[in-house]
Amino acid sequence: MFVYLDNSATTKSYKKVIEVMLRYMETDYGNPSSLHRMGLDAEKAIKEARKIVAASMGAKDEEIYFTSGGTEADNIALFGTAYARKRKGNKIITSQIEHPAILESCKNLVDMGFKVEYLPVDHNGIIDVSALNDALDDQSILITVMQINNELGSIQPIAEIAEMKRNAEKKIKTEILFHTDAVQSFGKLPINVKDSGIDLLTVSGHKIHGPKGVGAIYIRKGLNIKPYLYGGGQERGLRSGTENVPAIAGFGKAVDLYMKNFEKRMETVRTIRNYLEEGICSEIRDIRVNSPKDGSPAILNVSFIGVRGEVLLHSLEQANIYVSTGSACSSKKRGQSHVLEAIGSSASETDGVIRFSFSEFNTIEEMDYVLVNLKNAVDKFRKLGSFQ
Amino acid sequence: MFVYLDNSATTKSYKKVIEVMLRYMETDYGNPSSLHRMGLDAEKAIKEARKIVAASMGAKDEEIYFTSGGTEADNIALFGTAYARKRKGNKIITSQIEHPAILESCKNLVDMGFKVEYLPVDHNGIIDVSALNDALDDQSILITVMQINNELGSIQPIAEIAEMKRNAEKKIKTEILFHTDAVQSFGKLPINVKDSGIDLLTVSGHKIHGPKGVGAIYIRKGLNIKPYLYGGGQERGLRSGTENVPAIAGFGKAVDLYMKNFEKRMETVRTIRNYLEEGICSEIRDIRVNSPKDGSPAILNVSFIGVRGEVLLHSLEQANIYVSTGSACSSKKRGQSHVLEAIGSSASETDGVIRFSFSEFNTIEEMDYVLVNLKNAVDKFRKLGSFQ
Repeated sequence: MFVYLDNSATTKSYKKVIEVMLRYMETDYGNPSSLHRMGLDAEKAIKEARKIVAASMGAKDEEIYFTSGGTEADNIALFGTAYARKRKGNKIITSQIEHPAILESCKNLVDMGFKVEYLPVDHNGIIDVSALNDALDDQSILITVMQINNELGSIQPIAEIAEMKRNAEKKIKTEILFHTDAVQSFGKLPINVKDSGIDLLTVSGHKIHGPKGVGAIYIRKGLNIKPYLYGGGQERGLRSGTENVPAIAGFGKAVDLYMKNFEKRMETVRTIRNYLEEGICSEIRDIRVNSPKDGSPAILNVSFIGVRGEVLLHSLEQANIYVSTGSACSSKKRGQSHVLEAIGSSASETDGVIRFSFSEFNTIEEMDYVLVNLKNAVDKFRKLGSFQ
Repeated sequence: MFVYLDNSATTKSYKKVIEVMLRYMETDYGNPSSLHRMGLDAEKAIKEARKIVAASMGAKDEEIYFTSGGTEADNIALFGTAYARKRKGNKIITSQIEHPAILESCKNLVDMGFKVEYLPVDHNGIIDVSALNDALDDQSILITVMQINNELGSIQPIAEIAEMKRNAEKKIKTEILFHTDAVQSFGKLPINVKDSGIDLLTVSGHKIHGPKGVGAIYIRKGLNIKPYLYGGGQERGLRSGTENVPAIAGFGKAVDLYMKNFEKRMETVRTIRNYLEEGICSEIRDIRVNSPKDGSPAILNVSFIGVRGEVLLHSLEQANIYVSTGSACSSKKRGQSHVLEAIGSSASETDGVIRFSFSEFNTIEEMDYVLVNLKNAVDKFRKLGSFQ
């Protein structure tokens, strides 16, 4: 049996996504900037994908800009806003548990003279909304808080944040932008940017059975954001460079397929996730479930006390089961997870952490197989003492 | 007959490139940052591609950084150098006929307080090396001159530029970096960065029968360049974001296939190009060949006086022949080509311009077909007066 439970790191593309990509690689390979039919066909593919992505979140077509992925979209949101608004203020508010694409960008913005305030989170990884209220002042230009945390699956109170932003705007009489990294929530939760108070939103292709190397940023119409890549003026000047047509068309196809009845499919995913959680809780002692009960349907983060996560990961790998220790996004940097640290995990909880992340391709039978192997591995390493 | 002569805009991927991409989309779809075998397999694919790209230009593996394309690589070269060296000086020297990825970045650098000097070119589109000598001063931090111009095919005197840079460095006792955009020359001319004086070099996948959405930048070992995308620290911190594994692996395959005996294949491409040039010169009157005689083997730029290039393009399109008016990279911006303006073309020469760009898939038979259709179209529009 092959069990892939690292879907928050990346997913397998749908067959139909690959078919669409093949069309734009093999036959309709024109450059969208070319004036002839092959160029127009490529341009049409992008237009079609933009329409699908826009519709999936209640945006207008012209509010969607394709990027090379989620990280680029996050960077555009932060640097694009900071550069464009530095005369209005210098304060950016975020959380302690954001993706490195946000946190590392923030560090860089601090070097450039901006002030960043990192909101604390509770033991469930949910930000403290009253801390946000305190942080909002007349220097604030941007709030960036992810919708679903990639390690824990915690869901942030986006509507409350937006409400608080609106109140603060009334008080200080300047616009404050609200960006959310929705890479882990796109297709897991319903998203509708219309009247949501969200000004900027990041999504990625390869987390929803679409291609790697493509993402998008929603930028509310009328916002002035500084361009990120300079050149031929593609993506209406925001992001120059020959469009990655196969990936963009494939992304469109993925969104199209994924969003059809995703709520129903996510119910199934949640059932599978909960089945594994219950199995772990009832069969393995000395564990701690780090994911909140009402979090993402697709993420289960568990600490196996007294076992090293990495050792467990490699043991499961022997059984063709693929999981993660925390997130994959930090590019193999060793050391404590900043997310577990923020929720107050102990050293042994952090050491023994495994993230299981699910997709619609997983099954209950797979979970039975995982449980058997997991229990054996944990028992074995606890007997051996995996720290020696 | 189908004749694609827009290969400087983009090329058709090799079948074997697509096969490699399929492998990393369908089977080995892991995230290189994942610790398990699927992650390691993906990481290995990137390592292999890096080795191939490095070897193709005499670089060390660790001097190659993958990007989302040529435009991103150009932006990294310019902004990465400018930010890292702003304390050493504020002058950037380039040419009037660079790709928009360079020229638009330069405009932005001017807004940020840098000084940019644009070297003039002669009627062949070759920069004036003595002007470079005059421009080099103790404020100079970067020279960026493309190796082959994308509209004309002119080849710049890279070795002379590097020599001049070395001399200037001795005089002013500071390092001046030399970047070249080699997007149009990679695989057309031999490139060896070793001992070349080149510090930074841009290449792109989709111009050499590789995938769109991927490129690379050579950064000489030891150089300090400011990162471009912040996040998980991929590409040794220069360019964060989940690696586009299928595209990177496909790029590696394309370079591998393309570079094998490319000189021999380029001879064939040049024969085909010259055959079309001679045919046009002998069969169509009132034309001007804008490409220099000893330029790129793959580009032929011709002005058909008294005919509008765009009208000619669409007429050829009816016969399934795909060409370009100037470059495709300026994303359908209308108006004069800055390159033709720089070489002193007249208005009628600029209006009637067509760029034919070739690949190894073109044939002499195709050129006969193009010639017949081209002659008919030019004759017809001249009779009608295409400007009415």
